[in-house]
Amino acid sequence: MQSALVIANHNLKTLHGKTTHGLVRKCERYNIVGVIDPECAGENLSQILKGAKDLPIFVSVTDALTKLKSKPNLCITGIAVHGGKIPEEVKIVMSDAIKNGMSIINSLHEFISDNSDLKQLAEKHQVTLTDIRKPRPTKELRFWNGDIYSVKAPIIAILGTDCALGKRTTTQLLLDSCKKNQINAHMIYTGQTGWLQGAKYGFIFDVTANDFVSGELEGAIVNCYKNENPDLILLEGQSALRNPSGPCGAEFLLSGNAKNVILQHSPHRVYFEGYEELRLKLPAAKEEIKLIEAYGSQVIAIAMNSEGLNASEITSHKEALAKETGKPVFSILEDGAQGFIPHLKELIKNANR
Amino acid sequence: MQSALVIANHNLKTLHGKTTHGLVRKCERYNIVGVIDPECAGENLSQILKGAKDLPIFVSVTDALTKLKSKPNLCITGIAVHGGKIPEEVKIVMSDAIKNGMSIINSLHEFISDNSDLKQLAEKHQVTLTDIRKPRPTKELRFWNGDIYSVKAPIIAILGTDCALGKRTTTQLLLDSCKKNQINAHMIYTGQTGWLQGAKYGFIFDVTANDFVSGELEGAIVNCYKNENPDLILLEGQSALRNPSGPCGAEFLLSGNAKNVILQHSPHRVYFEGYEELRLKLPAAKEEIKLIEAYGSQVIAIAMNSEGLNASEITSHKEALAKETGKPVFSILEDGAQGFIPHLKELIKNANR
Repeated sequence: MQSALVIANHNLKTLHGKTTHGLVRKCERYNIVGVIDPECAGENLSQILKGAKDLPIFVSVTDALTKLKSKPNLCITGIAVHGGKIPEEVKIVMSDAIKNGMSIINSLHEFISDNSDLKQLAEKHQVTLTDIRKPRPTKELRFWNGDIYSVKAPIIAILGTDCALGKRTTTQLLLDSCKKNQINAHMIYTGQTGWLQGAKYGFIFDVTANDFVSGELEGAIVNCYKNENPDLILLEGQSALRNPSGPCGAEFLLSGNAKNVILQHSPHRVYFEGYEELRLKLPAAKEEIKLIEAYGSQVIAIAMNSEGLNASEITSHKEALAKETGKPVFSILEDGAQGFIPHLKELIKNANR
Repeated sequence: MQSALVIANHNLKTLHGKTTHGLVRKCERYNIVGVIDPECAGENLSQILKGAKDLPIFVSVTDALTKLKSKPNLCITGIAVHGGKIPEEVKIVMSDAIKNGMSIINSLHEFISDNSDLKQLAEKHQVTLTDIRKPRPTKELRFWNGDIYSVKAPIIAILGTDCALGKRTTTQLLLDSCKKNQINAHMIYTGQTGWLQGAKYGFIFDVTANDFVSGELEGAIVNCYKNENPDLILLEGQSALRNPSGPCGAEFLLSGNAKNVILQHSPHRVYFEGYEELRLKLPAAKEEIKLIEAYGSQVIAIAMNSEGLNASEITSHKEALAKETGKPVFSILEDGAQGFIPHLKELIKNANR
């Protein structure tokens, strides 16, 4: 397995660092050996981020190479920003890495393989530049055809009322809890981080030509079902049904036939992430459940994101959310995913197989 | 203006011929001089298709070249099929056209510029091959940023309960009626046919990388608003909110801020188009209106598609739909769009400008 540093670029403590957060919590594709974030260098990663491995945080590539026993093979971008442009500072970190003989894995929309400076540098130092969000050619893409109805395992979508809310982390924790409980659960990844983490079935939703999103999703689920004979399938959601910058969700419910939903919600968050100035209010969990029901699916439980809440607020918000929605509520980072297990077992028991 | 033949390939009388239908009703980008459809050759186009110009229908390219006074410059594909593969028979027509010195405009997902046989032939005969559905590179695409809220003209989305239902035709008829009533209305095209017809503002929705659909839509609306100072803006809808092969609609309502909707519905159609074997039932108009309202928009009127209905059924279904929904209903091909005008004038009057 190749070893890798993750470039968090001042975002280890922000929502834009969500790709880093995923990679330092779980990564089966690469051996993550550290994070570059000048602001957090020297701090304890597992204390900054619940569930993270205790990896070193470095100021720079040079700092990392001085302190690590061996040179990592790769540098991976660990940030996700609206529009996906590569920040200038990240390009500098990339250059440093290339000059030190490391290859780059870029997960942003702006492609490094289009950047002539980086390309020249990479050729000189004989390393590779990989853009994992480069769209696949249309002719390789699959159109939806209804094969999804052959899947008899329960399909559960993990949706959220906003983006950058922890949907993928919840999915990973659900997978771990399923494993502990002898449930053969599989995840369908739909983002760049899921791919980087090493998930086997899925596609990168947001770079796929719109007409083929439903078919690619269906294909990933059907393949997973055929190959793994799973007890249940978890779909990593994207964005949110009502997010004006890219509404998303109906694809999972209709094209992916997810008749069951775990809904991620943050009681602390007032406005859609990134659009605070526009004062675009997040929907109430209750309203989102109604919308999901209008599409013919049911919400089985709420995964609460506890950002901005202290211990007593977490308890009171859990109670309030349960009362508002009539659904079981788990504060996902505090409670873990064990509480969902009885509800998942119920779905497996009732599946029409 | 270049002259063009449209390849309908046996689909002049089917829903898959919808690109042809659009082009023979209205085209400002090309001078359409005839249609190739072996099944309908010799028939009267304006009798086959309401609102169509009276153009000749030919068996083949050779037939057209024998009968037309001068050779057309182009051949345009006039069919739209799920998945967008080019039927083999259409490739043969294309070859014939190329051999006779005509360039090809292809509107399907499969690209002729990737086809080595056609490419060789085109080089030999010095004509061009154009794929209008080739996705634009990610770096040229626009991300949503909330500029949409600067648009003070009413924005109306023309949505449907299914695809291939006449949303674009309704939009065109609305434009015509607005013109007659001195309303400065503009259309935002979102499909290949709209572009072929010569619409100025818009983008091809289904080939756009998912993350940029909302931003491209917003950009087209904002540009139209800035440049044309319109009284109102009409958004050509795509697919349908509940269509499992590619659910679509929230982008218009949220990212495009269409607070008003004209809903196209066919009382005769039972199942989603193309999925009759799966028996996927279309929603009732009333249920679709509820879903649109859950997104915070209102339906101002229904555009009824009269496919499969005789005159008395049209009348009774109009009445039934009006009773079911409480909305004004117009059978769009029979009644035209004049009936919508008072409702549009009301929106313009109440716009907060």
